[in-house]
Amino acid sequence: MPKSLANVKAVFFDLDQTLVDWRGYKESAIIASASAMRKAGLSLEEEKIRKMIEEIYDEKGWEYQRVFDDLLRKLEFKPTTQIYNKIKAAGVVAYREMKNKYLKPYPDIPLALEELKKMGYSLGLISDAPPFQGWSRLYELKLMDYFKEDHIYIGKAIKNSKKIFEDIMKGHNYAPDEIAMVGDNPQRDVKPANEAGVVSVLIKYGQVFPINPQDPLQNPDYFLESIWEFVELLREPRGLKKARFLF
Amino acid sequence: MPKSLANVKAVFFDLDQTLVDWRGYKESAIIASASAMRKAGLSLEEEKIRKMIEEIYDEKGWEYQRVFDDLLRKLEFKPTTQIYNKIKAAGVVAYREMKNKYLKPYPDIPLALEELKKMGYSLGLISDAPPFQGWSRLYELKLMDYFKEDHIYIGKAIKNSKKIFEDIMKGHNYAPDEIAMVGDNPQRDVKPANEAGVVSVLIKYGQVFPINPQDPLQNPDYFLESIWEFVELLREPRGLKKARFLF
Repeated sequence: MPKSLANVKAVFFDLDQTLVDWRGYKESAIIASASAMRKAGLSLEEEKIRKMIEEIYDEKGWEYQRVFDDLLRKLEFKPTTQIYNKIKAAGVVAYREMKNKYLKPYPDIPLALEELKKMGYSLGLISDAPPFQGWSRLYELKLMDYFKEDHIYIGKAIKNSKKIFEDIMKGHNYAPDEIAMVGDNPQRDVKPANEAGVVSVLIKYGQVFPINPQDPLQNPDYFLESIWEFVELLREPRGLKKARFLF
Repeated sequence: MPKSLANVKAVFFDLDQTLVDWRGYKESAIIASASAMRKAGLSLEEEKIRKMIEEIYDEKGWEYQRVFDDLLRKLEFKPTTQIYNKIKAAGVVAYREMKNKYLKPYPDIPLALEELKKMGYSLGLISDAPPFQGWSRLYELKLMDYFKEDHIYIGKAIKNSKKIFEDIMKGHNYAPDEIAMVGDNPQRDVKPANEAGVVSVLIKYGQVFPINPQDPLQNPDYFLESIWEFVELLREPRGLKKARFLF
């Protein structure tokens, strides 16, 4: 029996793979930069360059900012040479162009957030992206204005336990059933919410992690296909009209 | 009596203010980021924020990459706080959006470079931008393919004497009258060219430095309104047809 949504006042969202296809953009950016660096004079197969980039990310974290420097140094290019700067510039510019083109919210997100705000919910964000990257992403995606500033929590250590929800309840004077958490990760989004007694919502579209059947706390209260399904669920207990879909 | 263009085989261009209005974009980017940082919680007048940014650039160089960190530290924000990351992200994202929108070549540059290439000239670049920033700019502007790779010289110490032209003549086996240098700076573009006996061309549209009347070496062979005027001049001595202007 899932927890009721009837008393929910605040909805917190995970960022990457919940509001934005960050992995999709990252993969495209790696492919584009490998191709550009090869064209700029890096004489390795594209496939090999991509693999090396991914290995650096695996080792240093996927938001590591000096990946091209590490790559070129591994290949014994000297940082003072023109060719080092040329290849790095080619990679960085291709990477950024891909970011500008493809780092967008999932198409139904802005309107759904707008709708939830109109319905009177306080919207928040809980992300374990590094703080500067997380905040930058919110600005890049133009999602800042949907969230209440004091409901935004970004940082690496933030999502590993129910503590974040206890802090939120204390800080904003919410009861557990007044909060819902929407995310794509059973371990890091659903479990802490369940531990804190908060309503847990797992979305399927961005999900890359399976639910661990050994851990009942990873089972969400709601397991949904789209954010609009969530909007619909919230209308029900309050007796609001059905959403007028645009399609 | 200006040096003749009759034997010119290679044309070298300065980058900033010659091919691109770098100062214009930089000014817009500073204004946009000041406004965004204020909106993100920096409680200072925009005018004051802009002034502080400009002071940091004046001190550390106008391609300094950590300007927002310096600003926030001067204002005694702690780098570990959410507000530090939020304000910095707002500034950086606004800055980059302005860059993506406005950092473009002057509108007549790509076609004119294309035309010069078709006419058989080897095109080169001499810039005193820091190497990574200079190379990035070439890629961002999509100007890379107009230049011969071994005719590109980017780096801080590159433009302060005739030595760069002596190196070019030796490296590519050019006589002085086979080279023309096109730039906006009488001191750093025209004078070294004149000292090396290379044809010197000063363009007016991006010019922000006056010619020093005490220094005859700052007087260019040609002082032109547009890059098309230069294309026209090059057609003459070879008996080529007049340019078919598009306007």
